[in-house]
Amino acid sequence: MQLTPADVSSRLTVVRNTAPLVQCITNAVVMNFTANALLAVGCAPAMVDIPEEAGPFAGVASALLINLGTPYAEQRAAMPETVQDANAAGVPWVLDPVAVGSLPVRTELAAELLEYRPTAIRGNPSEIIALAGTGTGGRGVDAVHTPADALSAAQLLARRHDSVVAVSGATDIVTDGESDMRLHNGHELLAAITGGGCALGTLMAAFVGADSEQPLPAVAAAVAVYTIAAEQAAVAAEGPGTFVPRLLDALHNLDAAAVAQRLAVS
Amino acid sequence: MQLTPADVSSRLTVVRNTAPLVQCITNAVVMNFTANALLAVGCAPAMVDIPEEAGPFAGVASALLINLGTPYAEQRAAMPETVQDANAAGVPWVLDPVAVGSLPVRTELAAELLEYRPTAIRGNPSEIIALAGTGTGGRGVDAVHTPADALSAAQLLARRHDSVVAVSGATDIVTDGESDMRLHNGHELLAAITGGGCALGTLMAAFVGADSEQPLPAVAAAVAVYTIAAEQAAVAAEGPGTFVPRLLDALHNLDAAAVAQRLAVS
Amino acid sequence: MQLTPADVSSRLTVVRNTAPLVQCITNAVVMNFTANALLAVGCAPAMVDIPEEAGPFAGVASALLINLGTPYAEQRAAMPETVQDANAAGVPWVLDPVAVGSLPVRTELAAELLEYRPTAIRGNPSEIIALAGTGTGGRGVDAVHTPADALSAAQLLARRHDSVVAVSGATDIVTDGESDMRLHNGHELLAAITGGGCALGTLMAAFVGADSEQPLPAVAAAVAVYTIAAEQAAVAAEGPGTFVPRLLDALHNLDAAAVAQRLAVS
Repeated sequence: MQLTPADVSSRLTVVRNTAPLVQCITNAVVMNFTANALLAVGCAPAMVDIPEEAGPFAGVASALLINLGTPYAEQRAAMPETVQDANAAGVPWVLDPVAVGSLPVRTELAAELLEYRPTAIRGNPSEIIALAGTGTGGRGVDAVHTPADALSAAQLLARRHDSVVAVSGATDIVTDGESDMRLHNGHELLAAITGGGCALGTLMAAFVGADSEQPLPAVAAAVAVYTIAAEQAAVAAEGPGTFVPRLLDALHNLDAAAVAQRLAVS
Repeated sequence: MQLTPADVSSRLTVVRNTAPLVQCITNAVVMNFTANALLAVGCAPAMVDIPEEAGPFAGVASALLINLGTPYAEQRAAMPETVQDANAAGVPWVLDPVAVGSLPVRTELAAELLEYRPTAIRGNPSEIIALAGTGTGGRGVDAVHTPADALSAAQLLARRHDSVVAVSGATDIVTDGESDMRLHNGHELLAAITGGGCALGTLMAAFVGADSEQPLPAVAAAVAVYTIAAEQAAVAAEGPGTFVPRLLDALHNLDAAAVAQRLAVS
Repeated sequence: MQLTPADVSSRLTVVRNTAPLVQCITNAVVMNFTANALLAVGCAPAMVDIPEEAGPFAGVASALLINLGTPYAEQRAAMPETVQDANAAGVPWVLDPVAVGSLPVRTELAAELLEYRPTAIRGNPSEIIALAGTGTGGRGVDAVHTPADALSAAQLLARRHDSVVAVSGATDIVTDGESDMRLHNGHELLAAITGGGCALGTLMAAFVGADSEQPLPAVAAAVAVYTIAAEQAAVAAEGPGTFVPRLLDALHNLDAAAVAQRLAVS
């Protein structure tokens, strides 16, 4: 499967023109940054994450993001009903299993949520390996495996749950268990800010929300948009602090010319 | 009622000189940004939002902000007792009913809180219409009505609860049910960042905290300061990311000359 | 005891080279900023703060930060077991008793946590005086006493709990109850942003995590690094908004030459 610059730009244009309503049940550390990332690409974020509200809201959302970074009791209670309501309404959803493997509450929760077959899953190699059950996980949110190590775990996970799996790293891998793509864009400053991966998870939700029929190229386009924007942001950034606002600017201002110039897929 | 540049600047000076202690029970997405917005105009923010602490603290605060964006159980439990303690101590308070109308938990909570007669209320047209009971609300945090549509709802709400109501939009409306003001300052980037409206709610609390005797011009001055700062911030911003820190800078640096030059009220 | 520029730079280099895994149970307002501050100096932050996860995680962390700014029930439940597990594993931990004194829930919690003898404590003068029981505390997060007023309280607290105590202010004081240091670096913009003190608490955890054998110079080095970075950030900042990203950049880019040029200890 090929991912062309025209396809990436076309999908970004659809997101901007349709402004998907992206519901997020996400961790307290990155709520602000990820809401701003969604707004920057033209989406409407909605952090609706409590029981009695989150489930019904999923039925009217364009997409749903479930991130396990700070799984407080109310979010834990809301998550299963929300993904069920999303599934019932045909709303695509993304699972970001932050730090699963070593931490018991979220690891059990992730296993439960996987049964509801997320449209897509995003993680670093350690998280994907832990989720697939083919390794022992990392130390917290760190990646201790390389993306290449995680490929077979990602393929296994994708086939088992009928999901598209994105593995983040210097090279990003996107697979549906049959076809794989490697994306080589990005910048090391993404690993020097909190939520560098979480924000990508929300963009994946936005892009599958805009085209739930083709989750593989939708996820790949989200990865491409995000990592190309990171490259542009890094040009003028003087460190991780100024990188954050410039990344949001770059997501907002990204155009087809930049995508055509920078996209590196294999 | 007229709002002059001299009145706006004078009220900003009072805020800076008296540093109102503004207690916030607000949503997790914008806590950081709104605390920084309060600090930028010279206030002392205090995010004291749990039962047993929030109520007693309201009695010593200069003003209180209640925002319903992520109404977790502890905040829900704290809110009624806190507004009662604020009222008992004569402390003015502001209600920001984020996304009321379609979401059941916060909609019921907003109805309960309205009974305690907030000094001021801030919302987008959909939220104000939902609160007044004259419409069906929007999709999450979005505004799907224009400010003009919301005028009669705002007037009704203001009269019913003896409050000053501010409706945010391209044109902001401020009314106490008798007098109306239209403020034409602002910038579209305010709608491209999360908390663009929530931060205004906290500034409204700060300004009524500095003058609870005249809530109508106090609220209007807060709207003017915030939206004029947004115009200044937009000059050098390259997108929504760099707009955020520049908005905080502009709030911090705003002077009477800029207010006199930019204020547009009718 | 002397703190030399070479010692500060050497300790910063160790932090960067060893990337301490710093667990934070901290307030919702500053989670994002403090995670980014830790990343900026080369640490791995982990906001693991719920029962069943926080305790076991402390056993594998390099250091632990406990901040009482928004003490929600789950964090309150997690804190005692987490510091016990940290102590059992020999993991150093820092207590940041935000706004103790006037607010009952966190004041009782702080008293309980003190019994577990934090490696270090950070606060403004009011908080340190309240913790020592030698005064009546301030209004919320504000400092209403000077650092000099707090010296005897800090010494008392340090001796009583076998801790290193850092008192933040225009002049920072660091004491273990026997030796005192005064650090004169910093910038007033640190008091104009939310989390200006909280981020220092996390850096203190990082530096004692890198050298738990010498907590006094480790804490002093963290104060020096943070306040010197603040001076550098202030040079190009145009207000508190642009100061935040520039502070993170400065933490990331700080070198031995800047430390040598700016360090002011007595």
